[in-house]
Amino acid sequence: MTGIALFGCGRIGRLHAANLARTPGVTLVCVYDVMQGAANALATELGTSVAPSIEAALNDERVDAVLIATSTDTHTDLILQSVAAGKYVLCEKPVDLELQRAIACRDRLGTQASRVMMGFNRRFDPSFEAVRRRLEAGEIGRLEQVIITSRDPSPPPPAYIRVSGGLFRDMTIHDFDMSRFIAGNIVDVSATGGCLVDPEIGALGDIDSAMITMKSATGALVHINNSRRAVYGYDQRLEVFGSDGLLLAKNRHETTVEASGTGFTGRADPAAPFFLERYSEAYRAEIARFVTCIRDETPFPVTLDDGIAALRLAQAAQESLASSKTVTIDDRA
Amino acid sequence: MTGIALFGCGRIGRLHAANLARTPGVTLVCVYDVMQGAANALATELGTSVAPSIEAALNDERVDAVLIATSTDTHTDLILQSVAAGKYVLCEKPVDLELQRAIACRDRLGTQASRVMMGFNRRFDPSFEAVRRRLEAGEIGRLEQVIITSRDPSPPPPAYIRVSGGLFRDMTIHDFDMSRFIAGNIVDVSATGGCLVDPEIGALGDIDSAMITMKSATGALVHINNSRRAVYGYDQRLEVFGSDGLLLAKNRHETTVEASGTGFTGRADPAAPFFLERYSEAYRAEIARFVTCIRDETPFPVTLDDGIAALRLAQAAQESLASSKTVTIDDRA
Amino acid sequence: MTGIALFGCGRIGRLHAANLARTPGVTLVCVYDVMQGAANALATELGTSVAPSIEAALNDERVDAVLIATSTDTHTDLILQSVAAGKYVLCEKPVDLELQRAIACRDRLGTQASRVMMGFNRRFDPSFEAVRRRLEAGEIGRLEQVIITSRDPSPPPPAYIRVSGGLFRDMTIHDFDMSRFIAGNIVDVSATGGCLVDPEIGALGDIDSAMITMKSATGALVHINNSRRAVYGYDQRLEVFGSDGLLLAKNRHETTVEASGTGFTGRADPAAPFFLERYSEAYRAEIARFVTCIRDETPFPVTLDDGIAALRLAQAAQESLASSKTVTIDDRA
Amino acid sequence: MTGIALFGCGRIGRLHAANLARTPGVTLVCVYDVMQGAANALATELGTSVAPSIEAALNDERVDAVLIATSTDTHTDLILQSVAAGKYVLCEKPVDLELQRAIACRDRLGTQASRVMMGFNRRFDPSFEAVRRRLEAGEIGRLEQVIITSRDPSPPPPAYIRVSGGLFRDMTIHDFDMSRFIAGNIVDVSATGGCLVDPEIGALGDIDSAMITMKSATGALVHINNSRRAVYGYDQRLEVFGSDGLLLAKNRHETTVEASGTGFTGRADPAAPFFLERYSEAYRAEIARFVTCIRDETPFPVTLDDGIAALRLAQAAQESLASSKTVTIDDRA
Repeated sequence: MTGIALFGCGRIGRLHAANLARTPGVTLVCVYDVMQGAANALATELGTSVAPSIEAALNDERVDAVLIATSTDTHTDLILQSVAAGKYVLCEKPVDLELQRAIACRDRLGTQASRVMMGFNRRFDPSFEAVRRRLEAGEIGRLEQVIITSRDPSPPPPAYIRVSGGLFRDMTIHDFDMSRFIAGNIVDVSATGGCLVDPEIGALGDIDSAMITMKSATGALVHINNSRRAVYGYDQRLEVFGSDGLLLAKNRHETTVEASGTGFTGRADPAAPFFLERYSEAYRAEIARFVTCIRDETPFPVTLDDGIAALRLAQAAQESLASSKTVTIDDRA
Repeated sequence: MTGIALFGCGRIGRLHAANLARTPGVTLVCVYDVMQGAANALATELGTSVAPSIEAALNDERVDAVLIATSTDTHTDLILQSVAAGKYVLCEKPVDLELQRAIACRDRLGTQASRVMMGFNRRFDPSFEAVRRRLEAGEIGRLEQVIITSRDPSPPPPAYIRVSGGLFRDMTIHDFDMSRFIAGNIVDVSATGGCLVDPEIGALGDIDSAMITMKSATGALVHINNSRRAVYGYDQRLEVFGSDGLLLAKNRHETTVEASGTGFTGRADPAAPFFLERYSEAYRAEIARFVTCIRDETPFPVTLDDGIAALRLAQAAQESLASSKTVTIDDRA
Repeated sequence: MTGIALFGCGRIGRLHAANLARTPGVTLVCVYDVMQGAANALATELGTSVAPSIEAALNDERVDAVLIATSTDTHTDLILQSVAAGKYVLCEKPVDLELQRAIACRDRLGTQASRVMMGFNRRFDPSFEAVRRRLEAGEIGRLEQVIITSRDPSPPPPAYIRVSGGLFRDMTIHDFDMSRFIAGNIVDVSATGGCLVDPEIGALGDIDSAMITMKSATGALVHINNSRRAVYGYDQRLEVFGSDGLLLAKNRHETTVEASGTGFTGRADPAAPFFLERYSEAYRAEIARFVTCIRDETPFPVTLDDGIAALRLAQAAQESLASSKTVTIDDRA
Repeated sequence: MTGIALFGCGRIGRLHAANLARTPGVTLVCVYDVMQGAANALATELGTSVAPSIEAALNDERVDAVLIATSTDTHTDLILQSVAAGKYVLCEKPVDLELQRAIACRDRLGTQASRVMMGFNRRFDPSFEAVRRRLEAGEIGRLEQVIITSRDPSPPPPAYIRVSGGLFRDMTIHDFDMSRFIAGNIVDVSATGGCLVDPEIGALGDIDSAMITMKSATGALVHINNSRRAVYGYDQRLEVFGSDGLLLAKNRHETTVEASGTGFTGRADPAAPFFLERYSEAYRAEIARFVTCIRDETPFPVTLDDGIAALRLAQAAQESLASSKTVTIDDRA
């Protein structure tokens, strides 16, 4: 049995808790949230206990690993504390909004950084995983182009935008990681964007629409397009083009039903409404993988360095947006 | 140059005339219709002449071949007259509403029956043709099942139904021919149906919805479904299933555009509205093939015997509908 | 907590057991199989106990309900015993191979028949369920035609065929139930078929390929096509055609990935390999629904009468195959 | 009758000539090519005459319009000569490889520039045209993003590359025009690329793979991706994303057939092999539109200014590629 403590009982924390409850060989030892009501409700629902404090949870010998799903500004501190207490960590993205803090965290961890897995759930999506596996198996030859389409169904409220760190750190961060998952290291970034969806977002100094172009160390070209709003549902597609062919991961739908009627043919259900539905399998696989790695003592598939690299790309995109220049990535920074 | 006379200037006659005008190496020598106004209008539009009578057209030495697009009850007489005058014939389906008259026509023609091509346009559709070619090339192994979906966009007026010969002879006749095109000779037929679309059709003693099951000489099973009305457009699909795979010819659309919006994803244009649009390429290819066969003195790809065989299946389906029994086909009849 | 005893620890029994283990509010009290080794293995795997006998399980007060996944010939006896012991029953299809035995079972149960739910898993498939819900909501108007495509990936071994009761009772039974799920009561059946896939099946007096046509009480036409082998995977599609449109439930694939390469475009994964994968969600939903109905004391969605009706259609199809006649269904029989 | 002279009897010239021969109301008066053999062959094939010289053709009173399909370096001179002779002009893209020469040409023409139509055939593709029409009709609300995928099936020979003017002027020029067709005026351009397909192209100082990002005057973001090689066929897609939905124009296939077999499902024909096939309808519509505009004395839908604007974007992309900076477009230049 692997004992797990959950820090953070918000939307994503509750999702992970429900998945943990269904994962064989795992015990959700306790949950914690600064909002004690949220912790109590979740503990009751899942028949587990509420930790009185972070420290209490970390001192609990039954706890082998910690799942960090708290607000972003607490991530690095909780990582450091948890690892210091000898725990494994699965930390939600991003590591931090500040690249330097993320790097400092990793530097303080040293070799212990290997105890931390970053929660880039999309890597565990069956379709994206299949694309990478087939690419690596040589099915489409040498990688040449990647097109990532990533559009949210509707913009978050201004309060969320305000603390989000901006589109690139909050939303594109997943796409930066997906770029690296498919194309490996990135050497330069060019970004453009604007506020086309919601003027309130612009009023807060953020953008809601973006296009990013990158080049990988092997010369592959990568395009990301983002929007905070797609009326037809959460739009999450991946196109990988190589010397011998093309792999396309399309949107998921709840059913396979297609309807035809007066004036139209072949209308499918809407795409999955949002990430909880779209990536339900991915979240389950992520947790299962985290637990398996702990049990088998194998390296985590997504590291703190991956978290830092994605954040670095987000920062570079921000610079490019400001300067209208292509920004070169220095991975030694 | 191959000189052609067109008999019948209705909807299908005008379509053929327009295609003839665009076919290199062909001259539309004259047109004829019992409605002289229709003949005059078409002749003016295409810059050709109106034949004063059938006889005049058949006596015209410039006329090598005749395209018969008149009402069904005139087909056999015109075939006999035209062949007697030494012309080649492309005759619209069906040969006749009465199987015995069609057989009598063929018997009177004897070896001259080879001068007649039947106008089963769907055999020339690029997709159906590709299905047959790939089946014959062995791509899906031995043929086991055929599913033909054939639904008109909307029912014809009662006046049309009254002289149509009934659903099987008028509409399914094409599907019977398609069955033979794909599966070869048919040995038994079972049919059911009803009046689900338009009570006026039922009042005239006809049906507007049908399902037919047949067995081919090789044991392959064939299903046809028909409806006189599909609100999403002319529904013309073909599924061919074999020991090594499946070939599906789907509906054609005018563009490749797919739309997504609130509540839906991937909505295509409606299917082609009706046969003039759906089979536009097929009609052109049919005419071109007719002319090529004449020029090269090669056998026509669709014979009078094919026309008779389809009519025989229509008659068997009618019997099966009445008797609720499977009707065995005797091709020697 | 709802306590459940599982009778039968074969392939389908193990599937249900695994689903039960993941269903909240359910305890798998014990398992039983005439092959004691199978029972022991499953009990160990899931941390439950082995019942020493059927009787012991039925006398166990913790057992509220019984899941019957034993061989078909034991179904009616186990249903009667279980209901007599005051248990609810979820029984795998078919009720029995003999229609008269199934009817006798129901007659003996009288009003207690309502304690029995039949395991027609496909009714719980999200796509088929959506088709029915949308049909009932009026989205495509009045029902006119149903096309059920149901092809297994590969034929079962002769030993299975020998005790299967024949294609109609073993395989088509699901499609007969699906026909009723969509079109309601059926009034006549016409069937044809042959042995096209595996001569060994023919040698055993069975067929491996079939086409069935039926008419519903409302006049809707229903077509089923079956094959014991589809090289491209388990082919399970449903087409429902109405006065205002069409609903198509297509095959499910493990991922949304489409590949293009030299000579082809848009190749998807194979369809789900077989029923365990294809209907994984349906099996889970079936169990969940069974438990919910017990808990809420609401009627089961699939009754013993549904099981009998499907069996009656299978028998009628068998008669039609032998007689080449349409067989009228008498539901009072 | 509109009389037309064709200058240039190469691949694209012959295509236009064949289309002209089938366009009602048009006479191909004469053809001309510096390679007299090519002119003779085409004239014989289509039953027209060979002009002894450009001047002779331009002095021919029967010639109302000139179709320029010669090598790019002759375009501006032939435009000037033809307009001076009172003819209308349909000129193949690009106007010239040098932006300044194209501008000089337009300036010399002054108001007479309205006699020139540029041959951006893709604007006449039924699917791309439908996308624009539906966008303009408001179907997807306000335009926010455009994704143009444009990949050739295989790279041209080095001899072609050498005189092509580079990827942006030769190949992307169409995509620049498509960007303007959909998104209107462009205000900035950022480009990246590399030589991933064919080292010979790199050796000639050109690139064969590119990604371009642009912003329109209304703030819409536009992405183009290019490759000189797609093994699955000519890849020409258009995605237009707006506040109320998405329009996707997908690749065209010769048939609607989809095949399934061992290990795969739903494989379509390859995409159209190359532009002659992919844009066959577009080329016909282009010619028809050109002739209709002349006859009706309405403005041409694609102007010399459109040709210059596309060339300006190609030049800006070239600058951006060299400088790694976003280049601002000055349309007054």
